[in-house]
Amino acid sequence: MTQGWVNTWIEAIQIHLQRIVPDSSHVLHHSMRYSLLADGKRIRPLLALATGRAFGVAEEKMLDAACALECIHAYSLIHDDLPCMDNDDLRRGKPTNHKVFGDAMALLAGDALQTAAFSCISRSTSFSSEIRIRMISLLAEAAGHQGMVLGQAADMEAEQQLGEMTMEKLRFIHTYKTGKLLQAAIEMGAIAAEVSDSQYHSLHQFACHLGLVFQMVDDWLDVVGDTAVMGKMAGSDQEHGKLTYPALIGIEATKQAIETEEQLALQSLHAIDADTSLLENLLFLVTRRNR
Amino acid sequence: MTQGWVNTWIEAIQIHLQRIVPDSSHVLHHSMRYSLLADGKRIRPLLALATGRAFGVAEEKMLDAACALECIHAYSLIHDDLPCMDNDDLRRGKPTNHKVFGDAMALLAGDALQTAAFSCISRSTSFSSEIRIRMISLLAEAAGHQGMVLGQAADMEAEQQLGEMTMEKLRFIHTYKTGKLLQAAIEMGAIAAEVSDSQYHSLHQFACHLGLVFQMVDDWLDVVGDTAVMGKMAGSDQEHGKLTYPALIGIEATKQAIETEEQLALQSLHAIDADTSLLENLLFLVTRRNR
Repeated sequence: MTQGWVNTWIEAIQIHLQRIVPDSSHVLHHSMRYSLLADGKRIRPLLALATGRAFGVAEEKMLDAACALECIHAYSLIHDDLPCMDNDDLRRGKPTNHKVFGDAMALLAGDALQTAAFSCISRSTSFSSEIRIRMISLLAEAAGHQGMVLGQAADMEAEQQLGEMTMEKLRFIHTYKTGKLLQAAIEMGAIAAEVSDSQYHSLHQFACHLGLVFQMVDDWLDVVGDTAVMGKMAGSDQEHGKLTYPALIGIEATKQAIETEEQLALQSLHAIDADTSLLENLLFLVTRRNR
Repeated sequence: MTQGWVNTWIEAIQIHLQRIVPDSSHVLHHSMRYSLLADGKRIRPLLALATGRAFGVAEEKMLDAACALECIHAYSLIHDDLPCMDNDDLRRGKPTNHKVFGDAMALLAGDALQTAAFSCISRSTSFSSEIRIRMISLLAEAAGHQGMVLGQAADMEAEQQLGEMTMEKLRFIHTYKTGKLLQAAIEMGAIAAEVSDSQYHSLHQFACHLGLVFQMVDDWLDVVGDTAVMGKMAGSDQEHGKLTYPALIGIEATKQAIETEEQLALQSLHAIDADTSLLENLLFLVTRRNR
């Protein structure tokens, strides 16, 4: 049943994403659409929709906020792939944005996708100004210099000093680089639903564990997965000298850590007095893919 | 008197900007502060403050919105200077961000400064959620794929096909690349003051003319000015093969066009039933510097 829900809303998200950037003749718009509309798991938008749904917010109402999350994600991938960052040629099975449109246009497309995220929420007619302001504030904190970008900067610095890497540092990088935006997805759903403080707290806990498990699974797949499944080169993290969980604690310990975080995520979820089955199933989708 | 007002509020803006990014040990934060706090004319923040003041909004109330404009401006300069864009070594008399922090960190600092702009407004306690949402919506449209970034993309494309440049194309580039954010500065002041539709219209007209004149003066100075005054290399536009007004219509015609746009700006301003003397003097500050 969750798979049906996922399929339905991935399609709705895709249609909604198409409206964000005009299908014009400007190369900038082509470049933005190329990355934004590329196949993807849409896990952030789905998490926002599922959280809202658990507390009675119709999925349609959440679409603007959900697509804002995807805009931020898409922009971060474009910039991350640039030659001065990871210098990746392949993303989601397609040539990366700068390989098609050139470095300068890719830079600008990423910039404009970030702007589009905030535009999406501010123009949404689904929620009061007050709720939209709370969402924007949350998203900005999650994406900026105290969130995702801080994690990317820490990751970059760590690459240059591999020897000094510790578990604590790795957790910091992952919490910020990947975790903050996943958290924001769930918390935007919570803001939309105007949940109680204690429910917000439990959702926040769930989001933290899900964020960690997400990155662990990603690291784990980079070692054991294959290119076709991931749409990026297997072993590319190793190639970049990126430190991963398997590299730090081994493959088996990573697998166990995944299971532990998954259990903690479930505990947080079960503390919530609402039907959180969609969120539970999205968690399994994250952890069980390819296992 | 305006000069006293300008000095006072440039100082207040500087203090306010310092609060946006923590003075931490993270290189990312250093890199952001390096560009955000560098000397600058602060013309966008000042325009927002002056517009608010004309309609009775205290300058202090406008500081968050004003600093958001400066964050967007600073981010666009950092990205514009990157090797894949203009590849500039000098900005405001100092080495450009990527020359000090490297390309990757400069990219991230720009990204995070954009996010900070939206954070600033969303967290402002000066205005209702409704007004903040209108400001965010306006700023996003002015900065993104239908505003500043579109202008930058068009500029970049034009550089690669210099022969086909027309006055119409040049106006498009300048209207979007520079004009939209200057317009947003003035219109954010108007939103804050909740001006009437007809006042908004006149301010919009003023802003359009000011945007054009700003770019014409910039182009003109690039030809006749010297490096010390501008803080960037005189003749650097020519060097980059950028098309400018003087290159297209000659120095004298550019000077005349500046005067015409200035007159049109003044006419728009005089149609407004309020004390717009600060705005008038900011216009003169833009057009008369170094003449």
